[in-house]
Amino acid sequence: MSIERVAIVGLGLLGGSVGLAVAEHLPDTATTGYDTDPDVRRRATELGLVGTVCETAGEAVRECDLVLLCVPVGAMETAATALADDLPPHAIVSDVGSSKQAVADSLGRTLPKHAIVPAHPVAGTERSGPDAGFASLFSHRWCILTPPADADPAAVAALTGFWEALGAKVEIMEAEHHDLVLAVTSHIPHLIAYTIVGTASDLEEVTRGEVIKYSAGGFRDFTRIAASDPTMWRDVFLSNREAVLEMLGRFTEDLTALQRAIRRGDGEALFELFSKTRAIRRSILEQGQDDARPDFGRGDH
Amino acid sequence: MSIERVAIVGLGLLGGSVGLAVAEHLPDTATTGYDTDPDVRRRATELGLVGTVCETAGEAVRECDLVLLCVPVGAMETAATALADDLPPHAIVSDVGSSKQAVADSLGRTLPKHAIVPAHPVAGTERSGPDAGFASLFSHRWCILTPPADADPAAVAALTGFWEALGAKVEIMEAEHHDLVLAVTSHIPHLIAYTIVGTASDLEEVTRGEVIKYSAGGFRDFTRIAASDPTMWRDVFLSNREAVLEMLGRFTEDLTALQRAIRRGDGEALFELFSKTRAIRRSILEQGQDDARPDFGRGDH
Repeated sequence: MSIERVAIVGLGLLGGSVGLAVAEHLPDTATTGYDTDPDVRRRATELGLVGTVCETAGEAVRECDLVLLCVPVGAMETAATALADDLPPHAIVSDVGSSKQAVADSLGRTLPKHAIVPAHPVAGTERSGPDAGFASLFSHRWCILTPPADADPAAVAALTGFWEALGAKVEIMEAEHHDLVLAVTSHIPHLIAYTIVGTASDLEEVTRGEVIKYSAGGFRDFTRIAASDPTMWRDVFLSNREAVLEMLGRFTEDLTALQRAIRRGDGEALFELFSKTRAIRRSILEQGQDDARPDFGRGDH
Repeated sequence: MSIERVAIVGLGLLGGSVGLAVAEHLPDTATTGYDTDPDVRRRATELGLVGTVCETAGEAVRECDLVLLCVPVGAMETAATALADDLPPHAIVSDVGSSKQAVADSLGRTLPKHAIVPAHPVAGTERSGPDAGFASLFSHRWCILTPPADADPAAVAALTGFWEALGAKVEIMEAEHHDLVLAVTSHIPHLIAYTIVGTASDLEEVTRGEVIKYSAGGFRDFTRIAASDPTMWRDVFLSNREAVLEMLGRFTEDLTALQRAIRRGDGEALFELFSKTRAIRRSILEQGQDDARPDFGRGDH
């Protein structure tokens, strides 16, 4: 099974980046694209995010070997319905959504099950829209495939090859486990960041101007995450509700213990936790998942 | 009142950076330094963090116009006691601690009150120790002075000039207000980051390897903050307990509301919060307190 034509539905940060990455790494692969927003279609054409921007989803997928749905998780079912009638029988259907059980369910309602191989490239920035895309977004990042038990192995192999060609490292995982892992490494961090930024902007004793001015003390890192696309993240929390609530429960429990340690003046408990967390940082740097420069090279030194 | 000789007590990230910044921006100002750890004194000598590394705190401050205590907040009183007998009568005593009421109390117990002008440069990285210092750490960052009501205005003016010379912007604030503002913009973000990294490393269902592998989804930003110096942060939470607990209460309240919105599937409430938080990010970028590049320029694009 070879992928010679890729259709990208949804031309924002992710869809645009896939289009640009294909052009760079797989120059012989043709790309078509579609977005429900006419302004995004126009901008995608100007930016050359894909070879051909089509006026309907059906037109975009009509001759493709792979469709990638790059829309918010809550829009997957509508997007799948819009292209179902025009999908070639041999085509693989995949996506880039951040929760995987919900996506498998949404796509399975309208599309042939054997064709569906949900995927999640663990990559992104706080930007969104067609202007946010760039070709190297997936380079050295992990892409998790969550094929259902009845997925076609040839389709899984072809999709694996596709993502590896774009520079990603591929891992196969069960959808349920993916949703739990990502709840910890991505969804809860986003939820917490949104919350603290919201809390800080609603205080009476501290002005918003002060919060902004003194944000270099740590707060600014949270604002970056909390600037992520609201629609995408609303859908993530609604679609991965159970795992998010489970992990949020653990987090709250740990935070309460720490709160008690502060109230009691238990310096030993604080020191112990603050020492332990350094080891994880070291491993992340060793595995190339972050930049070791202080401030990620933000400073001018 | 002119500052011609600066004594730096504590030669880690902050103390070392002050020494290097003085050498760069105020080449005519002499610096002496001291650290209780002989290994740090040796390393500071090798790195040339200050003009002269002394063997005692008394020796370091004996001829200075300004002493800067760059030690964890919990070590301020001991450090002040060690130099009290050798402090010249005209010298200004300041510090770089992250909580300011506690520092004013600690220093006031052993040193003459009119000499004390506590300060907090809102700058840092997750690194610590003498090798972590660099001259541009304070460039374009805010430095908050919290002079008590009876502080000598000439000392406040001289210290303001000193920090401005190192590239910082200076703001005067009451110590109590400082502690509340920093609880929001720095202390709570650190506490939350330490907690989530701790939570993630203690799970049974998700391995530590998985947490590290998929950290690019948001978690890695928290690990950077959670790699900060454990002693320094233990002391911050113990010394700014009231403001931290107050702000933590607000945060927990907001998080509980969001948790309920997720449980109820209230997408509108989620969308509303996630949209609001973008405005704060924009302001931080406009005021030059962060880098607008996606991933802070981490990527290779």
